[in-house]
Parts: sequence; C-alpha cells; structure tokens
Amino acid sequence: MRQRAIIENVKPEVNGGRYPIKRVTGEAVHIQADIFADGHDAVRASVQFRKVNSKNWSELLLNARPNDLFEAQFSLEEQGIYEYRIIAWIDHLQNWYNSFLKKEAAGQYLSIELEEGKILLEKAAATYPKTKARILTDYAKKLADKKRYKEAIGIVLSEAFKKMIAEYPFKQFETTYNPGLRIIVERKRALFSTWYEVFPRSASPEPGRAGTFRDAEALIPRIASMGFDVLYFPPIHPIGELNRKGKNNATNSEPGEPGSPWAIGSQHGGHKAVNAELGTMKDYEQLIKTAKNHGIEVALDLAFQCAPDHPYIKEHPEWFIWRPDNTIMYAENPPKKYQDIVPLNFECEAWESLWQELKEVTMFWVKKGIKIFRVDNPHTKSFNFWEWCIAEVHKKYPDVIFLSEAFTRPKRMASLAKKGFTQGYTYFTWRTNKYELQEYITELTQSELREYFRPNFWPTTPDILPYHLQGAGENMFIIRYLLAATLSSSYGIYGGAFEAMDNVGNSNGKEEFQDSEKYEVKHYNWNLQNRLTSLMTKVNKLRNEQVALQSTWNIHFTNTSNEQIVSYVKKEDKEQIIWCIASFDAHHNQSAFVEVPKALLGIDQFVNLRLHDLLTDQYFEWRNDWNYVELNPDYYPMHILRVEIQK
Amino acid sequence: MRQRAIIENVKPEVNGGRYPIKRVTGEAVHIQADIFADGHDAVRASVQFRKVNSKNWSELLLNARPNDLFEAQFSLEEQGIYEYRIIAWIDHLQNWYNSFLKKEAAGQYLSIELEEGKILLEKAAATYPKTKARILTDYAKKLADKKRYKEAIGIVLSEAFKKMIAEYPFKQFETTYNPGLRIIVERKRALFSTWYEVFPRSASPEPGRAGTFRDAEALIPRIASMGFDVLYFPPIHPIGELNRKGKNNATNSEPGEPGSPWAIGSQHGGHKAVNAELGTMKDYEQLIKTAKNHGIEVALDLAFQCAPDHPYIKEHPEWFIWRPDNTIMYAENPPKKYQDIVPLNFECEAWESLWQELKEVTMFWVKKGIKIFRVDNPHTKSFNFWEWCIAEVHKKYPDVIFLSEAFTRPKRMASLAKKGFTQGYTYFTWRTNKYELQEYITELTQSELREYFRPNFWPTTPDILPYHLQGAGENMFIIRYLLAATLSSSYGIYGGAFEAMDNVGNSNGKEEFQDSEKYEVKHYNWNLQNRLTSLMTKVNKLRNEQVALQSTWNIHFTNTSNEQIVSYVKKEDKEQIIWCIASFDAHHNQSAFVEVPKALLGIDQFVNLRLHDLLTDQYFEWRNDWNYVELNPDYYPMHILRVEIQK
Repeated sequence: MRQRAIIENVKPEVNGGRYPIKRVTGEAVHIQADIFADGHDAVRASVQFRKVNSKNWSELLLNARPNDLFEAQFSLEEQGIYEYRIIAWIDHLQNWYNSFLKKEAAGQYLSIELEEGKILLEKAAATYPKTKARILTDYAKKLADKKRYKEAIGIVLSEAFKKMIAEYPFKQFETTYNPGLRIIVERKRALFSTWYEVFPRSASPEPGRAGTFRDAEALIPRIASMGFDVLYFPPIHPIGELNRKGKNNATNSEPGEPGSPWAIGSQHGGHKAVNAELGTMKDYEQLIKTAKNHGIEVALDLAFQCAPDHPYIKEHPEWFIWRPDNTIMYAENPPKKYQDIVPLNFECEAWESLWQELKEVTMFWVKKGIKIFRVDNPHTKSFNFWEWCIAEVHKKYPDVIFLSEAFTRPKRMASLAKKGFTQGYTYFTWRTNKYELQEYITELTQSELREYFRPNFWPTTPDILPYHLQGAGENMFIIRYLLAATLSSSYGIYGGAFEAMDNVGNSNGKEEFQDSEKYEVKHYNWNLQNRLTSLMTKVNKLRNEQVALQSTWNIHFTNTSNEQIVSYVKKEDKEQIIWCIASFDAHHNQSAFVEVPKALLGIDQFVNLRLHDLLTDQYFEWRNDWNYVELNPDYYPMHILRVEIQK
Repeated sequence: MRQRAIIENVKPEVNGGRYPIKRVTGEAVHIQADIFADGHDAVRASVQFRKVNSKNWSELLLNARPNDLFEAQFSLEEQGIYEYRIIAWIDHLQNWYNSFLKKEAAGQYLSIELEEGKILLEKAAATYPKTKARILTDYAKKLADKKRYKEAIGIVLSEAFKKMIAEYPFKQFETTYNPGLRIIVERKRALFSTWYEVFPRSASPEPGRAGTFRDAEALIPRIASMGFDVLYFPPIHPIGELNRKGKNNATNSEPGEPGSPWAIGSQHGGHKAVNAELGTMKDYEQLIKTAKNHGIEVALDLAFQCAPDHPYIKEHPEWFIWRPDNTIMYAENPPKKYQDIVPLNFECEAWESLWQELKEVTMFWVKKGIKIFRVDNPHTKSFNFWEWCIAEVHKKYPDVIFLSEAFTRPKRMASLAKKGFTQGYTYFTWRTNKYELQEYITELTQSELREYFRPNFWPTTPDILPYHLQGAGENMFIIRYLLAATLSSSYGIYGGAFEAMDNVGNSNGKEEFQDSEKYEVKHYNWNLQNRLTSLMTKVNKLRNEQVALQSTWNIHFTNTSNEQIVSYVKKEDKEQIIWCIASFDAHHNQSAFVEVPKALLGIDQFVNLRLHDLLTDQYFEWRNDWNYVELNPDYYPMHILRVEIQK
C-alpha cells in the first residue's frame, strides 16, 4: 500500500491481456503507458520481458514523454511466446538529484543535501549486486567527505554522476502492472508471404486429362521462378460420393464429375487420406520435398466438415447432430439445405474426443511436412476449439502458420486472429476506390488490429470473382494485382484463373465464377506468359529485394490532387523507403500532383528527392513540395519508387 | 469449453473493472457489448445486476444491433454499490423458431421440425421454475400432436408463440463476462450541487472585526435565498504559529496576522479542533444545524498537511520525514521551500497508523454532521490512501461526498475520480473560447470520463483569479457565471470576492488575487445586491426547476454562424429541453444564426418550436432550420430557452 506510482492504459494490450499480441522475429514492440504518482517526486518506469517459463527478465527503462506518457521500444529475435509487464516507482535518488541541481543553481549551501545523497546512494546500493553496488557506495563515500565540500559538489554536477543516476534506478515500493501480457513471436513468413493457389486436379499439361500431384509438382519450377513462396492446394482428401455436387453447384452430379474438394470424406477415407485420383501419399510427400527445394512451402486446406459418407459418421455418430427421424443434420441456411456437407457438432457431449481428433488431423499433416494451413471457414467452428488447437500445435511446432478464411463480420474476423490465426483473408477483395481502400488499410494498420490481425490480400479466390473483375480487361487485373502486392506484405492469387484473367461471372448474378473450378476440372495453359505474369515475376522480385515491401505496418497514405490516384509511402527506415503511386482508372490516363510527406521523410525545408521507378527503371528528381505524375493504364498503372533523400 | 458465444468490448468498464462506474439514484446505465459466436445460430445475451452481497440478480435481455453490438439500459433507484455482468448464449429455441419461419414461408413440410420444437421446448422448460416451465411444456404438447399438423403450424406462427420465444430465453453453455464490474450509486447531490465558498473569518458584518462561526451562520438565510445548497469553508482548525505566512504570502507574518487556514495545527490543536478565533465546536455544530434548516449542507475542507507546530509532529514523529540534521522536511518545490507546511510521509513505516488517523479525522467530522468534504490538493497524497479512506467512510456513510481540489495534469485528475472522489474541480476556469470550451466539455461528457468524473465548475477560487477576469468588468463576470451554472450541474463560486467582482490580479503577474484572502481577513458587504447577485438568484431557481439543468451528461453543442456565440442543448427527455445560447463578448453585441438540431429534437421535417427565454420571460417562435439571435452583454449575454416542440 506504500506504492505511489500508478500504471494505466498500457499499449499494446489485447482484451486486457486475455490475448497475446503478435510479432515476427526482429519486429519492434512499441510499449506505451500512462504512469504517474501523487506529488512532485520523480517517477520512473521500465518494461520487463522474457520468454515464458524462463527465469530472468530483460529490462528496459521507459522514456518519459509529456502528459504522463511513458514509452520504449524493443524487438525479439527468437521465435516463441514472451511475457511482458510494466513496473514503476518513485525514484528518490533521481528525485534528490533533480532537486540538488536546482538548489545548486540557486546558490544554496548543500551540506545536508550531500548527506542525504550519501544515504540514498547507500540505500540504492543495497538493491544491486556487489559489483554494481560498489559504484554507488564509492560515490556515497565521496559525498560524505565533509572536508571536501567543493569536490563533492563537483562530483554531483559531473556528467559521470548524471549517467550513473540515469543508469542506476533506485526502486522502492514498485507498482507492477502484470495482467499476463504476452507476445507470440513467429517466423518472418507469418508477416511476409506470397501465395499461389492451384487445384492439383487442374494441373495437367494436357486438356482432357485430370491433373495429379505429379502434374502439380511439375508446375513448381515455374511458380518458384515467378517468385511465389507458398503453394496452396484446396483439400486433397477423398471427395464425398453421396449427394456430390455437379458442375456449377448443381444439386446432383453426373457420373464422372469430380465434386467439390471441400466435401471431404468417402468410403476411401477422410481427413487423413489423400484422394487417389490425385495420386498417393508418397506422391504428395515428394511434391512437398520438391517445393522445399524451390524455396516454396506447401499449404494444406483444413476444412473441418464432412461429406455425408465420411467415415466419421459411422465411426463417431456422437460428433454429429441427429434429427428426431434419425437422419443426420445437414448444413443449412434456412430455407436452403446443403446436403453434400454435414457439420461437426462442437456442442456435443463428446466434444473432447472431437477436439482431440481434429488436433490429430492437423498434427498428422504437420508430421508430413506441412507448416502452413489455410483454414476453411473457421468462423463456422467453435472459436474456443481454434484457440486450443492452434496453441496445442504451437507447443510442439511454433513455426506453423494458420491462414483464416473467414469472410465474415469484422468482429468475428478479429476474434479469430486473437484466438491464434496467423493471417486472415480480408475485405481488400471489395475495396476498390481511394477513400474506402485508405480507410480500410488505415484501420488494419493503425488500430488495435495491428497487434494481432495480419492481413492477406487476394484479388480473387475460387469462391469470389468480384463485380469489378467481371468482364474486366487486363488493365483492371493488373491494377488489382499491384495494389494487393504492394499494400500488404502477404498476398495471394488464385493462380491459373487469375493469370488467364478469367472474368466470366456466374449467371446467378453473384460475385462467383461461371463454371467454377470448385465443381469441375479446369485446363490452364501452364506455360502462359502475358503482361500480368511478367509483372508478377517483376513485383515478387522487388518484394524480395525491398525490405519496405516486407511489412504491412509501415504504410502511410499521402496526399494527391486526384481521387483516381492513391499514394502511399512504406518506410522501414531512412534508407528503406518505397513510394507507391497508383491509378484506379483502367481505361484512361490519370494525372495528379502528389505531395511530398516532408515530416514523414524527415525533410526540414527543401525537397530534394531522387526517385527510382523500380518497374520502369526511370529516375525522377523532385524538388517541389507537390510534384506531377501521370499514369497510363496500358503501360504501368503504378509507380513503385525507391526514395533517396538527397542533401 | 462448449461455450460458443464471445463477449468483448463491454461498456461501461473502467480499467477492466478495476474501478466502479458512478451514477446517482435514478440515472440510467447504458450497457453495450460486442457479442457474437461462430456459425449462423441465434445469439442472445443479457445484463445481470444486483447490490453487492445480495443474492438475486436482476436480469435484462440485451437488444441486438447491427455489427454484433448488443445494448440495453437500466437505472438504479437505491443508493449503494452494485455489480453487473453480461451473459450470452446460443439460443437453440430462438434459432429453431427463426429457421421454422423461413422454411414455412418457403412452403416446406415441417413435421420433423415440429418434433424438434417440442424437444427444445421441453429442454428449455427444464431450465425454468415450475409455473414458467408449464407454459413451455404446454406448447410442447401441442406441437407434438401429430394429428393436428395444421393447428401446430398455426400455433408456431401465432403472436403469442413469438412473444413466448422472446420472453423465454433458452440458456445453454452460457458465456459469462464478469471481471467484477461495479456501479456506485450515490445521492442526487453528487451530480447536482451549487456551492458557495466563504472564509468565516471574513463573515463579519462590520469592518475591523474578524468574522466568526456566528457571523457566518447569520449569512445563511441570504445564501439560501440565493439558491445555494452547499456552504464551504476553508479549514476551520487552529492555524500554525510557527513560520506563519503574512499578507500576500510574505514569509514572515506580523503579530496579529491570521495566517493561512491551510497551515493547520498549533499548540491549540490539529485537524479535530476548531480555531478558537472562529468560535467553539458548539458554535460550529449550531451553524451546521441552521444551514440544514435552510436546505444547505456545510462542507468541510480536508487538508491533510501540517503546520510545523501541529501536535502530530511531537506525538507522531514517525509520520514525517526527518533530515540528517534532525530537522523536519518542509514542503518544497526546489529551489523553493514552504516552511509553513510540513507534508505527511505516506511512504513511512508507520503508514497504517497514519492512514487510520486520517480516516478518524474524516469520521470525526462526519459524526459532527458533515457529509460533504472539499479535499485540498488530494494529488499530493497517496492515491491508494484515498481509495481506501473513501471506501471506508462509504461503508458506514454512503452519502458522504468528496470534492477533489486537484488542479493538476489530466490523468491524475481522472485517477482521483476513479479512486472514489465524488466530484472534481476542472479546467473550466481557463477555458474561455468556443472551441476549447466545446472540446473540453465534449471530453468530459462523451469520453469514458463521463463514467466516473463528475465536474464542478468554478469561475474563480481563493487560489485563482484567471487572467480573463483580472481587470474585467461586470459583463465578463456574468458571462463566466452563466457558463459555469448552465454547462455543469455542479458549480461553485468563491462568494464574497465573486459577488463583489474583485478583479485585482496579484502584482507577481500570476493568476492570483492581490491581497489574497488566504493570508488576511477581508470585509465584504453581505447585503450586496447587484446585477450578478440578482442573476445568480434567478439562475439557481431555474436550476432547481428545470430538470435538464440538473445533469451534466445531457449536453449537445449545436451549430452557430459566429465563433463568439456558443449554443448547447440540454435534453433530458422530450418534455425537458433547455437550449442555452451564449456570447463570449463582454463588450459588443453579437449576433448569429443558430441551427435547430433536428435529429436531436426528433424533428422529421419542418421546424415549429416555441421557445421561452427563462431569463427575460420572452417567447420566440422558430420555423426555420437556422434562426437569428442577438445578444447584448449589457443586458443578458445568454438565452436560457425552454424548448417546446409544437406539432
């Protein structure tokens, strides 16, 4: 109760410490807190952090800012779970020192103050280990020497003494703020990843034959050469035969139709089996190895739902909902029923065995070498389950990445990220004009979301062909690609269809593909080379070279004179600055004046910038506060400029 | 772990439930929370609340709003400490009902659904006491009657069934959000109070004689007739004789000078004694009684600090700081020393006996009939102490009010309110133009401060004569008075000096009075009648009559065309609306068009307002969206309009 310091409003802090914040190795954690005490005494504070279960805390003094704000920044180089806490105290040694300087400046006689200083130094010394304590006791002795008043004053006024006061906090009656704040530090790919999605059954080089793992494996060199580092397949398990969907989501399938890979399980096996039509488990394992050799990780689709002929239904009827007429409950969105899918019942009595089994499914694939999962519709399964399952996997395999495919309401998306998902799909797919794009990305990067939700931007997915790409031309595909790849450090494309710029919307009027690959085998030209594939290769190379493109958090939107032109600077440090200026207009040239963000770039007075356009290899010299740009959608609808601030 | 509902972002909630929110009796608590679950099932939620230590929870279902927001509002009629919590669950009965309606509308045959409904009704019934359960089981029986399919369908579609579903939540696997959220419900004066400050030593009706309690008692009828309900005296205890301050804060006093009443304690006693120059304890008790008879409460100044001759220093040297030369540590702000004041050391080893003593001082005066304390500089004493002391007093006397005199940094002011202070002085004293006044009051009333910090507005205090009142004329005093009395439901004036419009600033250039009453006896004309006293009488009467002026939280600033004219509507309900329009200009007429806040007033289309100016008794009819006003500072610089919305 003798504590006088109060610590409040600590940031970052998610739900009062209920959930951890997230970082990748080397990324900074910026700590802020309101810290104050009664009276006028000097308040000092520090942040302490350590790996969970390790003994010793690292400690960093916080810097005092105006209005009782304290802050500091640190980064963590090792993967793992860390905890952090804030401590604060009245520092009577610091306080004495501050007063001493003022009194000395006012010409007061300070012999009692010297005596007080001696006592405080001795008390402070008692809180330090021997070697450090000696520094304090040595000063104490010097201050106590009454014959050498002038020398003692000189010592207190010295730079060395000032440094000692700064470096030797004297902690008494500390207040500790410790509601269990944690940081999950993950590997770099959690933040910086470039995804390529393929249906292996469409990987065949020749029309008329369905693709296999071996065909998909053969695509890897091309995908790697284009600069992608995650290769994601829709589910590779046996597909349900009962109530199998036909082409264009038809309720019944014709014989020979392959069905939706998300309708998992049949007499041939469930979530731990591979679809024999794609090949063997060995083929799949070989593919994972080949990918690895090309610097690519293979991502598996975790879709925790069952076709009506999934083995679970007979083996574990207790995991499903049974109706009064003893039929199984299908997925439904009344009045519609989805009879090719049966949901798992997370409220069932046997929830523990269900959770265990789903965890084992995940671990099964981890052991096969899968370290990245794209999770299908996680928002339709218990959030408590995800929190547990992801934590369980991370206990043994902290480098496993989970991408949440939750296209749902914002608070649910955020909650899944809090529960542990590494990355999430986003609304980028539908944010098409400057205002809504800036607003959305500002929310993602400047609000509390930044602490736990890592966005992954996809222009299209097998589920979604947004209206602005239906019937759209090459230029619009290029604009959407460039925005995804430069706004977010993680993005993905739905490979074959995107490269081919498939723009045919479903005749049902929804934002879906006509003849969706979800229900049929597609054939693509896997040797395709066009303006888009060439651009992707170029941009992925830039992303690997330019550190500023490897984070989503360093973005700053800047002013332009044209609503059709958006401008954003990604600044990692003074040397690593990328400035993107993009047009939304796929049909006409657009021009604008763009403002140089002088405060952001640390420019005091006159602008003197050398800009290197990394797409066109042009150089620009900018000397004005506002500068003219013009973008031609048939050429490059975006400048990606490397910024050099010249003296 | 089978819980699926998630509850987040609960409001109000102060420091995660660490501190209670505050209300007065009858005031509404508006609860909000983000509540959601996985999947598409119906989520329902309620707020539960009860007096601490009572057995039964009251429960109120929350209303679902867009974007996963839930909310409801309740009020508490009895003084005391309450707790509240949120619960949420998937309501399978509601869910079944929603699905049933959709399927029925789609023309599906629903015999299995009826069976499912029966089962759910029976399960839900099991969660209710007998009489309520019967309503559900009766429905279950009707739904189960397979011979009467059509009748059963009709029952489910009936209004009565819909009402039953709404009123009979079926709770399973509830999620409880309960971090110990509390509400302190206080008496109405905590929010609505009108303070008058007098130095009793200046209460004498005749010059040349110092005033006494009896003189102050004689002022009570006048103060009551002016409509004040709290009478606050600076400390009434013996004043230190050692190092006593002289006129204008002189370090040494001349014999006969009275000293600062905040330098408490001498050979004649300390914090439990009264200054014999003012009279006896009996006189003081008689004054409290007389005040009570006039509807006035007497407020005591709690100033927990000592003059150097306070009895505590000999009796309890352990409560003070002693320097190496065995002298006591005076208050200081280096290089300055305040040798008439000795601070208490809240960090001392004997902190427990110190705390107990200070609590006993408080309780001593409570037992004398004091229920309101103005606490001097609470920010220079341990905040932990205040939290404990106020809670201790409230255990026995929940109606005791503490006003915090903490003119300090914003986070410290807020923290004292969290710790338990009922009201706080504010920065109103220095907020003089439209922008800063609107911004400040919006912060006080629209931010989280609203939950725990009740402002009290003072145009001047014995410590502060702000620059805008130094040398100012009558009009400026009137403007400041009107703003204080209408912006905030609690305000106070430093009586004699304010009525006399003492505008003489200290020659030291600070915002202080010349010849401050803190260091000398003043003589005022206690029969004074002027434009200001007459206005105060009028406005205090209005405050007692107009419910809208009795809350600070109901304020809405509205648009005017002139930066010199501020407009605010205080709306308690449709019938209780006061509209204040004020000019800041003490010298010239100002005019403006003011906008009618149609959304706030619930006006759909055409304006048709009848306005009654309660100061001038004029009536206005407004039919336009923007209306002309003109304010003459020599007459009334403010309209206080009672708003009547006409059909």
